[in-house]
Amino acid sequence: MKIITISREFGSGGRELGKRIADVLGFAYYDREIITAIAENKGLDENYVNNILESNIWQAVPITFRHSFTIPAVMNNTQTELLLEQRKVIEEIAYKGQDCVIVGRNADIILEKYNPFSIFVCADIQTKVKRCIERAEKGEQLTKKQIEQNMKRIDKNRASSREIICDFKWGDPKAYDLTVNTTCFDIKALAPAVADYVMHLIGGQNENTVI
Amino acid sequence: MKIITISREFGSGGRELGKRIADVLGFAYYDREIITAIAENKGLDENYVNNILESNIWQAVPITFRHSFTIPAVMNNTQTELLLEQRKVIEEIAYKGQDCVIVGRNADIILEKYNPFSIFVCADIQTKVKRCIERAEKGEQLTKKQIEQNMKRIDKNRASSREIICDFKWGDPKAYDLTVNTTCFDIKALAPAVADYVMHLIGGQNENTVI
Repeated sequence: MKIITISREFGSGGRELGKRIADVLGFAYYDREIITAIAENKGLDENYVNNILESNIWQAVPITFRHSFTIPAVMNNTQTELLLEQRKVIEEIAYKGQDCVIVGRNADIILEKYNPFSIFVCADIQTKVKRCIERAEKGEQLTKKQIEQNMKRIDKNRASSREIICDFKWGDPKAYDLTVNTTCFDIKALAPAVADYVMHLIGGQNENTVI
Repeated sequence: MKIITISREFGSGGRELGKRIADVLGFAYYDREIITAIAENKGLDENYVNNILESNIWQAVPITFRHSFTIPAVMNNTQTELLLEQRKVIEEIAYKGQDCVIVGRNADIILEKYNPFSIFVCADIQTKVKRCIERAEKGEQLTKKQIEQNMKRIDKNRASSREIICDFKWGDPKAYDLTVNTTCFDIKALAPAVADYVMHLIGGQNENTVI
C-alpha cells in the first residue's frame, strides 16, 4: 500500500495538486470525504463538523499538552469526540490497504507507522491571494486584505493543530519528504512531476508494508 | 539553456545529489570548479581562495548593507575582489549557454535573469552527522559534537551570505522551486527522481531563454 499525504498552506493549490496526483496515479483520494464520514458516523451535519474541526480550538490548548494525543480538558466534548472520530476515520482509510492520497488533517503523523510519503505545498503570498480570488465563488467578494487575514488565520490554525502532535514545526521542510513551491508552475504541470517523483522513491515498495 | 541550482545544508548530501543529477541529465557540473577558476584568474592558491570565501566575512556586514550587491567597506580588498570574481565566474558559466548544475554560492540569485530551477536540500541532524562521519577522510577524527558545531557554523555562514542579497531567508521553501529532504532516501535513488521532476517542468524550455 502506498499512502501520499499532502499538507499545504491555504491558497497554495495543495488540494488541487493532491487530487491531480491521485488521478495521475489512479489512487483513491481523501479530503472532504473524511468530514463526510465523520458526520455520517456521528449523525451530524457535515458543515457543522467541518466548522468545529477548522475552528481555532487548538490555540486554546496549553503548550504543555501539545505533544500527546491525549485531548486536554480545555476542549469540550463535541470537539474531543470529533477529533477522535477524525483520527479513527483516517486510520480506517489506511486499514483498507488501498493506495491513496490524503489531504490535510495531519494524516502523515496519524499514519506514521504506514510510512506515508509526505508532501508540503507552499507558494508566495501574491500567488496564494491570486489563486483565492480566482477560486472565489460568485457573490463571494473578499478584499485582498480580508483574504490575507483569512489565510493567516487558517494557516495559524493548521500550524497549531500540528504542533500538538509533532515536534517539527508546521511547514518545516525537515518534517516532510518533499516540499513543493507552486509559485512558478501550473498545478496541472506539477501533478505528473510530483507523481513521478514519489513513484521513483516508493514505486517498488512491497504491498502492505508497515514499518 | 537549463540551469539547475542547488543550495544545501552542510551534510545533507546536496553536493552528491547535484553531481548525480548532472550525470543523469548529461549536464555540466560546477562546484569546486568555481573556486579553481577564481584562483586561476587571480593567480592565487585554491585553498586560500576557498578559505576566504567560506570564512565568516558575511557576519561582519551590517544588516543595512545586506540587500545590495555593493560590497560594504567593512570587508577588506581581497574579500571584495574574490566575491566580485566569484560573481563574474558564475555569470560566465551561464553566458556559455550550456545546460548545467551549479552547487552553492547563491547562484540561483546571481543568475536570476536566466530563470534557473532552484533546489534546496535538507535533512535531519542525525542523518547529516552520520553522513559527515561516513564521508570523513582517514585520520580526520572529529567528535559528534565537533561535527555539529562545524555544521552550525558553516550553515550560519551560508545563511548570512544569502541574506545579504535576497529577501527570503536561507532554507525558506518559498525561495526555491523544490525542497528535497534526504533523511529517508538514498542520494542514488533521489537523483533520477529530482532529475525527472525538473525535466517535467523545464524540459520543454526554449534554448537560451532569458526572461
